[in-house]
Amino acid sequence: MVALTAELVDIASVSHHEQALADHLEAILGSLPWLDVVRHGDNLVARTDLGRRYRLILAGHTDTVPPDGNARARVVGDTVHGLGSSDMKSGLAVFVELARTVVEPNVDVSYVFYAGEEVESRHNGLGHLARDQPELLAADAAILGEPTGGAIEAGCQGTLRLAVTTRGRRAHTARPWMGDNAVHRLGPVLSLVGDYVGRRPVLGGCEFAEALQAVAVEGGVAANVVPDQARLTLNHRFAPDRTPEEAERRLRDLLAPALGPDDAVELLDVAPGAPPSLDHPLLAALAGNAGVEVRAKLGWTDVARFTTLGVPACNLGPGDPTLAHRADERAERSLIESTFVALRRLITTEP
Amino acid sequence: MVALTAELVDIASVSHHEQALADHLEAILGSLPWLDVVRHGDNLVARTDLGRRYRLILAGHTDTVPPDGNARARVVGDTVHGLGSSDMKSGLAVFVELARTVVEPNVDVSYVFYAGEEVESRHNGLGHLARDQPELLAADAAILGEPTGGAIEAGCQGTLRLAVTTRGRRAHTARPWMGDNAVHRLGPVLSLVGDYVGRRPVLGGCEFAEALQAVAVEGGVAANVVPDQARLTLNHRFAPDRTPEEAERRLRDLLAPALGPDDAVELLDVAPGAPPSLDHPLLAALAGNAGVEVRAKLGWTDVARFTTLGVPACNLGPGDPTLAHRADERAERSLIESTFVALRRLITTEP
Repeated sequence: MVALTAELVDIASVSHHEQALADHLEAILGSLPWLDVVRHGDNLVARTDLGRRYRLILAGHTDTVPPDGNARARVVGDTVHGLGSSDMKSGLAVFVELARTVVEPNVDVSYVFYAGEEVESRHNGLGHLARDQPELLAADAAILGEPTGGAIEAGCQGTLRLAVTTRGRRAHTARPWMGDNAVHRLGPVLSLVGDYVGRRPVLGGCEFAEALQAVAVEGGVAANVVPDQARLTLNHRFAPDRTPEEAERRLRDLLAPALGPDDAVELLDVAPGAPPSLDHPLLAALAGNAGVEVRAKLGWTDVARFTTLGVPACNLGPGDPTLAHRADERAERSLIESTFVALRRLITTEP
Repeated sequence: MVALTAELVDIASVSHHEQALADHLEAILGSLPWLDVVRHGDNLVARTDLGRRYRLILAGHTDTVPPDGNARARVVGDTVHGLGSSDMKSGLAVFVELARTVVEPNVDVSYVFYAGEEVESRHNGLGHLARDQPELLAADAAILGEPTGGAIEAGCQGTLRLAVTTRGRRAHTARPWMGDNAVHRLGPVLSLVGDYVGRRPVLGGCEFAEALQAVAVEGGVAANVVPDQARLTLNHRFAPDRTPEEAERRLRDLLAPALGPDDAVELLDVAPGAPPSLDHPLLAALAGNAGVEVRAKLGWTDVARFTTLGVPACNLGPGDPTLAHRADERAERSLIESTFVALRRLITTEP
């Protein structure tokens, strides 16, 4: 699975460019006669159909963030380095290995490989499947292979993005008092954002941790012109005890003191969080595995999407979540193998 | 001269396309037997050679910024509208009318019409003349016909641009404490820039006004990534009592408290200012004209270039500086005529 992870890393799949990786996975899965494979765009669903009592989805996204000097895989000892090794091609490798080797599981399994998770929600392949072929996502429970360091990460935080547009008035930079600098006006907004301290509520025994980060900034007209507009994009992560509406309202309240009447705050996208849901027998059995830690998922994951679809879900993957989206992203053999063992035990034992 | 201004406006001369206007001016000036005309590229120098005690340059650029729905001239009452009417074809019209009508001035006059002023400094026709035929720019004083609303604008401020790059560390926005947000780090920089209060030194009786403005900002990696780099471009206008080196050093000192060891400050470009130089008898005589206001030039102009060449210079033109580069650019008969009268008096009186 370490070699397979490296193989998957070497097939570039930055968001919106997942086709080559989808082709590769389709070729592997299509060769396994015990699976029924359906492709929808660059999304794949490969299912057993053994008439078991429960059906479990094992789902992972195929896309990565853009490379940061780490596009090629490198295996050093028991570690595979490279873009997506943690988030989440090591998870995909575990699922592919289960699909290849567990011919007659004791729960029916739907392996779901989907595109467009690292970008705006409207590109999310699970969303496309839910909209166009919802029957492919019917299941009793779902496990997402997002990086959790081999732990169960329960629930997930919500995420929303807001764009703050400050507006001023153009002028020549030699006479700036004739204008109003929209870029300068971002200073107080950035101070509020930089000083923000997130709540850390404990829900279902799991501690969440809210966050607020600027993720993009742009502004400027010409080298000698006072800019009349600047735009700051913020990403807020909120615990699942808040609705998206409440999180948005509180964020707008936080920013209001730094904004003027001509400035605008626009909601770009939002995805609700999900509270921990480990009561389902399949997930409870997973959590009952000796030595598997259970904690809150801080990132937004498609656990929330499954929760909305009525499918209880959690995260479990071999990647290190603290290394996701970093140049030194990597995954370890021991966690890849222990994740494989935990999931194989789950699907080969009738709960 | 209103009609002549309109005629010059109707000959398009956006920067890099001044040839037709240079041809037109060459035809007019070449027909005046009391002038010796030299052409260099699309730059023209037309000189009297009467052996006077002083030689005065009257200089104006022929190029304009790109049109903004105002390419054609329109004369309404005493106003001529159209691209370049203020900056600075009304000034050119005054110079052409002086060249046509003042056959035996009491100071020798070099009329200089040059290309490429509205674009990067390396395209500036005065620069090309200074490099290739510096004898054509030899003079005791120079007056630039840039728009000043009929006032004398003395000296000019220097201008420099710096890029501030803040550097942090990428991380997932759900776990921002693993990274360091380079966009947040711009907050304190923008606070310093926003709080900056420029000096207003009075030099040679003219009050200058320093300024510091952010003109561009950019940063961001992806919607869910803590950005590891952000870049802020600043434009600083500094009074001519400071050298470019001193202005740069003080700006770096101003910014230093907001910057960390991995951040960078890069000088992008710089042009020195020029102190008012109205002591020369020719310029003093001009300033002594009843009713001509004298004030500092806040923008950068080729006055600085003449100062570097050792030729004291100032700005005096009929255009309205606040209308330059605007769609509603225009010039007024009264200012065109009063500028003509002031300059005719200067060159027909031995100072």
